[in-house]
Amino acid sequence: MRIIGIDPGLARVGYGIIEIKKEKKIILDCGVIETSKEKKEEFRLFEIFKDLNELIEHWNPNIAAVEKFFFYKSSRTISVVQARGVIMMVLASKHIKVSEYSPAQIKLTVAGTGKASKKEVLESVMYNLKLNKPPKPDDSADALAIALTKLNEEGFN
Amino acid sequence: MRIIGIDPGLARVGYGIIEIKKEKKIILDCGVIETSKEKKEEFRLFEIFKDLNELIEHWNPNIAAVEKFFFYKSSRTISVVQARGVIMMVLASKHIKVSEYSPAQIKLTVAGTGKASKKEVLESVMYNLKLNKPPKPDDSADALAIALTKLNEEGFN
Repeated sequence: MRIIGIDPGLARVGYGIIEIKKEKKIILDCGVIETSKEKKEEFRLFEIFKDLNELIEHWNPNIAAVEKFFFYKSSRTISVVQARGVIMMVLASKHIKVSEYSPAQIKLTVAGTGKASKKEVLESVMYNLKLNKPPKPDDSADALAIALTKLNEEGFN
Repeated sequence: MRIIGIDPGLARVGYGIIEIKKEKKIILDCGVIETSKEKKEEFRLFEIFKDLNELIEHWNPNIAAVEKFFFYKSSRTISVVQARGVIMMVLASKHIKVSEYSPAQIKLTVAGTGKASKKEVLESVMYNLKLNKPPKPDDSADALAIALTKLNEEGFN
């Protein structure tokens, strides 16, 4: 089982790829797809499309977990939701099964409470993946937390 | 000049393709990309991706006009905004220059007032394009109105 966790955004799309090998969780890759603020929005969406396609072709994950968005409950902008649309579409185009989790579900699963702070989530991710130092870049910890939420659901604690 | 006007949606994406030939506006095609309600959202987004790509490869428009969305000001759902993200990305991938117009701008340009009713917009589209009967399906009139807004800006009244 190889999972990609994705934290959607227009300027930065966080991702983390974890493989289960002999019951162990191994980080294969984590990082951020960044898009240029100088470009028009539709070209930034196209950058996300190309980079995510490349990433998936390289690592070939078979499942995905993506943060779920809610209207009116968040400060998400049109831009970020549009970027999420591109991300979801790319996953479907690659026949990758997608699970979606709310921020509260992710925090609850990973850090034990739906109201966990960013620091608590980071520490839980490090503990869970046996990391000695925080994953770099910072944003990738959230993507790893999203992947861990799905892995927990699948029985890999 | 060949323009595609697009009215974004997840269940239905309206489109209208107009060509300017000897100062005349000619409708080449209009219709709706429909996605199946039975499918999971990400697969519906992928349907839009495939169908819009096909449409553009067939008609080869060089400019596009798309309805602009505003947060909090509309009843748009996450799904519809995500679909718009896929649409904008496809246009960028085909190097088509995109203009965006608010519903009020479209109504003002086409029907003379930002508060025009659906019926008034339809009648104005028919008058402007010299149609004897309403374009079919119904939703495509909105996409044609969006295309006409851009054409008006370019001086083709």
